[in-house]
Amino acid sequence: MASVLRASRGLRSTGRLASSSIRYTAVRSFTASSACSAQSSFLPDEPVAPKVVTPIPGPKSQQHIAELTKVFDTRSLNMLANYQKSYGNYISDPDGNVLLDVYAQIASIPVGYNNPTLLEAAKSDQMISSLINRPALGNFPSHDWASILETGILRVAPKGLNQVFTAMAGSDANETAYKAAFMWKKQQERGGPDVEFTEQELTSAMKNQKPGSPDMSIMSFKTGFHGRLFGSLSTTRSKPIHKLDIPAFDWPQAPFPNLKYPLEQHAEENAAEEKRCLEEAENIIKTYHNPVAAVVVEPIQSEGGDNHASPAFFRGLREITRRHNVLLIVDEVQTGVGATGKFWAHDHWNLQDPPDIVTFSKKAQTAGYYFGNPALRPNKPYRQFNTWMGDPARAILFRAIINEIERLNLVEHTAKTGDYLFGEIEKLAKKYPEQFQNLRGKGQGTFIAFDNPKRDEFLAKAKTLGINIGGSGASAVRLRPMLIFQKHHADILLDAFEKLAKSL
Amino acid sequence: MASVLRASRGLRSTGRLASSSIRYTAVRSFTASSACSAQSSFLPDEPVAPKVVTPIPGPKSQQHIAELTKVFDTRSLNMLANYQKSYGNYISDPDGNVLLDVYAQIASIPVGYNNPTLLEAAKSDQMISSLINRPALGNFPSHDWASILETGILRVAPKGLNQVFTAMAGSDANETAYKAAFMWKKQQERGGPDVEFTEQELTSAMKNQKPGSPDMSIMSFKTGFHGRLFGSLSTTRSKPIHKLDIPAFDWPQAPFPNLKYPLEQHAEENAAEEKRCLEEAENIIKTYHNPVAAVVVEPIQSEGGDNHASPAFFRGLREITRRHNVLLIVDEVQTGVGATGKFWAHDHWNLQDPPDIVTFSKKAQTAGYYFGNPALRPNKPYRQFNTWMGDPARAILFRAIINEIERLNLVEHTAKTGDYLFGEIEKLAKKYPEQFQNLRGKGQGTFIAFDNPKRDEFLAKAKTLGINIGGSGASAVRLRPMLIFQKHHADILLDAFEKLAKSL
Repeated sequence: MASVLRASRGLRSTGRLASSSIRYTAVRSFTASSACSAQSSFLPDEPVAPKVVTPIPGPKSQQHIAELTKVFDTRSLNMLANYQKSYGNYISDPDGNVLLDVYAQIASIPVGYNNPTLLEAAKSDQMISSLINRPALGNFPSHDWASILETGILRVAPKGLNQVFTAMAGSDANETAYKAAFMWKKQQERGGPDVEFTEQELTSAMKNQKPGSPDMSIMSFKTGFHGRLFGSLSTTRSKPIHKLDIPAFDWPQAPFPNLKYPLEQHAEENAAEEKRCLEEAENIIKTYHNPVAAVVVEPIQSEGGDNHASPAFFRGLREITRRHNVLLIVDEVQTGVGATGKFWAHDHWNLQDPPDIVTFSKKAQTAGYYFGNPALRPNKPYRQFNTWMGDPARAILFRAIINEIERLNLVEHTAKTGDYLFGEIEKLAKKYPEQFQNLRGKGQGTFIAFDNPKRDEFLAKAKTLGINIGGSGASAVRLRPMLIFQKHHADILLDAFEKLAKSL
Repeated sequence: MASVLRASRGLRSTGRLASSSIRYTAVRSFTASSACSAQSSFLPDEPVAPKVVTPIPGPKSQQHIAELTKVFDTRSLNMLANYQKSYGNYISDPDGNVLLDVYAQIASIPVGYNNPTLLEAAKSDQMISSLINRPALGNFPSHDWASILETGILRVAPKGLNQVFTAMAGSDANETAYKAAFMWKKQQERGGPDVEFTEQELTSAMKNQKPGSPDMSIMSFKTGFHGRLFGSLSTTRSKPIHKLDIPAFDWPQAPFPNLKYPLEQHAEENAAEEKRCLEEAENIIKTYHNPVAAVVVEPIQSEGGDNHASPAFFRGLREITRRHNVLLIVDEVQTGVGATGKFWAHDHWNLQDPPDIVTFSKKAQTAGYYFGNPALRPNKPYRQFNTWMGDPARAILFRAIINEIERLNLVEHTAKTGDYLFGEIEKLAKKYPEQFQNLRGKGQGTFIAFDNPKRDEFLAKAKTLGINIGGSGASAVRLRPMLIFQKHHADILLDAFEKLAKSL
């Protein structure tokens, strides 16, 4: 099957390049038979199957990797890609290999490579202006910034949260949220927004000493991941390799429920486990020597191994944080934007009282935090500020992503595709119980994972079958397909899973 | 003078839009006389003078601000801009005001608004692909990533530094540099890259406790600014408003020289002041209870008030850090990319032994840190890692900026324009000594500043004269024109300065 994506440069009849009308256009050709045999894709010109023509990395990739290694750390390299040739759910490499991508740039590609809707947005005048005229948003916002926010980021704001602070990536989204929490908490202690800082606060802050730089904390959960900068890393508890040798704040961690699967068979002990974790969380909030300003939690611990908890657990956490006047920050960096079958994963919890702050990044292709309570705007300007405060170009892209999600009804679609996929993996798990342990993510869209005793081998072998797939934690295979992942893609994946199960 | 920038949509002879050839094109019209009277600009269609037609903000801007205030904190708003209508050195607003911009998005616009070279880059296939197919660079770099680095970011790498770690903005550029420093220092203590972590290190790191999370520090300088996330903020010492209520690491600060001006008249006491500061810096490195892994310093303290030190001071700092086996991190976030009359401000120091790490952002429109020593690559993968690790789209833009700087020889040009501007302000300072105090930045390109007793009024009044200008520290007026700032722009600025001096 031939699969080509190329930059069409508006060839004139003379055959010369018409440089004034350069268009970046997806063009694919298939044999008629292969194209006709395929189920209808959201992106009609998508390949119909993976194609593996060399070992990965192949000779051309190896050349590129050798070149890159001279100037860039490639020890974490998974696969060298050619994005101009990638399309929809399929990632291509320079050697002509085309893989079904259910890892999707660590869960950050929402609507497919070279999605035509995003292509249009990228070519728009507004995008081009945003790229080449990058503003200092806090000082010199553009006349259309309110409109970009309202028709984009804020259109999908979580229920109850109508404000946003824009950032660059997950780490600084979380850290700016933590800063908002600390300022809010100290303001309460101080007696409100109109109480001035004391001279002692002003001078001690400049020395990194209390009371100006207080000994307060953010509580996170064991095996959670919230980023790798100094504040966010202090809340990250997934793996030592992330944290070793880096100074950290003396902040507390609560246990995260360690549920047993299948859930139906362990209802009682799982409920007891969640109760135990909530009690310990509450105890830490009440007693930790560095007072807790906020609790940060992922709806599904993603990097840490796809660890789930029930809606009841999260409702309990909301109650506890409210009771002790501590903010609840929900980190939706990996779970947000549709993959769990709801736009925000915390929509599954049916909260009456929304989270105080929700952070986002990855599939949004931009980042930041949502909030609702006006008291979370610091009492003075320049307390929460930086030069760029995000990137309007990326905010415009998120708007296009939202439009595409709505146009194709991709959240509901992902819920359904996820149900199908989960059901089929459940069947595989009955047939090959050793290969698909602790299957989890039921009713959570395509946000599905299972443990495999030879996980790393499983992932490596999947590539030879044309599947790009990722892991998380110590032994989990994590599925992170895009929102345009459909039943016929699932069938290709399931077929590969069965082959893997037989061969491992 | 009419000044219009519009999106030209390739009108066909029928008058219908040719949507397949949308072009974002700068089109400006002037009266012939005004255009002819102007000196030749690098961007030929640039306005010839500012134009102020309403109070700022005018009625249209006020409408936009009211709209934006509903969803975005506008208390730090300086001016609402229309970037589609801005061009070259001139920033426009929705009310038709056109200001000469010598603040340039807090020193971050390098080669002018709607620069045609950047426009071409923004429309390129490579840019569009990078925008819509954003990779997780550490795992899935694109086949052209090595080339993008080599022909861009690395082509202007500081002498002696041939590696880069890409980041998103100044704060995380600095923090990832700090992380590299801590990992390097601990590795030395441990006995090299092949010594494994101990069990105690692995378990204590997960609890944010030593030895895994060590009590080490980064030393910075008083009145320095290095960002606002938790690690970078712990090294920022410019103003309490940046730091209040945010937990900070117990890291030390050394005094930064407080030089007296004019330098020629205070040579001896300034030398003594620098000696005192170096001695105290060395003393801290030798004795601070949390061992110092690295020293971070700005070549010119920018946010903190445009504080300069001599090349001899920085050479001394290099000697001290080398002697005590501590890294020297030069924060060129604001000083880098040409504005000081050298591509990197530390090029002025004539170091024989280069800095260990140089961080960049702002005018680069992307960010990261340069290094040379291979030992600064952590000994294992995934120790310095995150999902996006920068943004190829912004790296492609930096490459276009570098091309434009080279094409127009803008670094040398800025050195000359700066000399002219400094000389003329020196004359004004003789005439109005009260208004132009402590004039500084001689021989530092256009990176010029002076103190004014009514600084905030000075800045506000400048807008009524068609000049957008910024401050720093308590009383400094800081000039941060773009690299395409020319003598005729300087003359407009100087004319406004004289008017301001007379009126204040």
